[in-house]
Amino acid sequence: MIEKMIAKIKKTGAPIVVGLDPMLGYIPQNLLQKAFSEYGETLEGAAEAVWQFNKGIVDAVCDLVPAVKPQIAMYEQFGIPGLKAYKRTVDYCKEKDLVVIGDIKRGDIGSTSAAYAVGHLGRVQVGSQTFAPFDEDFATVNPYLGTDGVKPFIDVCKEHGKGLFILVKTSNPSSGEFQDRLIDGRPLYEWVGEKVDEWGREHMGKEYSYIGAVTGATYPEMGKTLRKLMPKTFFLVPGYGAQGAKGADLANFFNEDGLGAIVNSSRGIIAAYRQEAYAAFGEAGYAQASRKAVEDMAADIRQALQ
Amino acid sequence: MIEKMIAKIKKTGAPIVVGLDPMLGYIPQNLLQKAFSEYGETLEGAAEAVWQFNKGIVDAVCDLVPAVKPQIAMYEQFGIPGLKAYKRTVDYCKEKDLVVIGDIKRGDIGSTSAAYAVGHLGRVQVGSQTFAPFDEDFATVNPYLGTDGVKPFIDVCKEHGKGLFILVKTSNPSSGEFQDRLIDGRPLYEWVGEKVDEWGREHMGKEYSYIGAVTGATYPEMGKTLRKLMPKTFFLVPGYGAQGAKGADLANFFNEDGLGAIVNSSRGIIAAYRQEAYAAFGEAGYAQASRKAVEDMAADIRQALQ
Repeated sequence: MIEKMIAKIKKTGAPIVVGLDPMLGYIPQNLLQKAFSEYGETLEGAAEAVWQFNKGIVDAVCDLVPAVKPQIAMYEQFGIPGLKAYKRTVDYCKEKDLVVIGDIKRGDIGSTSAAYAVGHLGRVQVGSQTFAPFDEDFATVNPYLGTDGVKPFIDVCKEHGKGLFILVKTSNPSSGEFQDRLIDGRPLYEWVGEKVDEWGREHMGKEYSYIGAVTGATYPEMGKTLRKLMPKTFFLVPGYGAQGAKGADLANFFNEDGLGAIVNSSRGIIAAYRQEAYAAFGEAGYAQASRKAVEDMAADIRQALQ
Repeated sequence: MIEKMIAKIKKTGAPIVVGLDPMLGYIPQNLLQKAFSEYGETLEGAAEAVWQFNKGIVDAVCDLVPAVKPQIAMYEQFGIPGLKAYKRTVDYCKEKDLVVIGDIKRGDIGSTSAAYAVGHLGRVQVGSQTFAPFDEDFATVNPYLGTDGVKPFIDVCKEHGKGLFILVKTSNPSSGEFQDRLIDGRPLYEWVGEKVDEWGREHMGKEYSYIGAVTGATYPEMGKTLRKLMPKTFFLVPGYGAQGAKGADLANFFNEDGLGAIVNSSRGIIAAYRQEAYAAFGEAGYAQASRKAVEDMAADIRQALQ
């Protein structure tokens, strides 16, 4: 999957992942009303609106970007119907040949991590049959529990050609509370980064590992250090756009080959029509506004990498 | 919810939570075959077997224990049908007046943590309606992302009288890789513990906070330190039984009032019939074997606390 992602980044010239994190507040009124008129103001209605909204965006941007990243929390909040919309979104994006990064931030120990891993990236055994319940291409994983928690995910990835992005330095303001604390003179996130690099050696692709890292665009100096520390690790970089990071902040996350990072934007793309710059598209043009926002973001990154 | 849990611990005399982490390998053949004959060897068949297995155990132990802890990974691995079985288990346990701790180990930032929180502990808004999609009483949360990641959960808990157990020192062998690293002379888990104590003050019950901590029974010395560091924090203590900790290890996790901790056992209870000590119950008596294992565990803890 890392090879597919790299190939698609080269083809599109856009190291961009579109974060499919639909909040109901982002969804144009006509889509919302249509879903509610069919299913009522119910969890099913919300899930239908989310799915229709996603479909519009995916159709509009699928030729421009290599990957999407549905944030499962935004679906899980609507219970079972929401999780069905998540699955439907994953399936549809794969049909469109997009690489799907399930932003699930799971992490547990032993057989429990293994259960998450088979459910999201592998196949689960039921009697003599096996099934791939969610079947994302990558998943995000939380490292707080150490190797026991991560290894079962890696084993499943190796078996099925899938990959991970492990949280190293997250983009949020309070990420430093624990991640920046110094251990033997170096911040925790560097120690986690080294471990990710070590884990990643177990599942290498040609140039990069299948085991990547999440490193927030909002901390470009830390990105620079991590980039040197883990040259074979692909970075998933959140925090661009709505969270405050700009194109110029991004260069640090890339290697000299112009690869090594894929930048996420969620709100900045999927709710672009609500920004002044794209307001002319209107609600009805929300998907085309997203397309324009992707084009602008791609240009911004190209400039930063020059 | 913390008050209800404490009241039920006093009433049952058993600070025990039964971990409902059903693997198909634990489920007696007749239950499995019945589910497969009805639904085939499918995700639906697996989910039905899991649900029937759980129901048997819950019926057998519900008068002996205050709480259950379904591990969502064990359901999520079977996709949507599995998550339906999770929800059905949560609902059934609540009907039986058990406190339900959703072992979901979620954790993200800002609006994403808020989405998990409303989905699991609160109510989600859909148009003019609200729904409680999963509606557990407590949830486990991962602290790696700091206050931004935890605060939205606490806000929802305050609004709905729910609680959390935040990972501090986990029970697994490699938990020390990051959690034990020294920061200014003290291990990371103590810093996390202090933060949990601080967060917990925002949502206090009468004697204990609604915001608890996960502290592994496999590290009793660390439990002792944490117990002193955070006297108002209730501990969810995994690692007893199958993971190796014994009754004698548990005393450190309790306060002098005999409260302050609830000990989890999963495999040791739900798959008790597979242990030599309970083999006489046979597969058909798996639920009664679980009941006996709970009684033995309660006696073991009582002795440790004397």
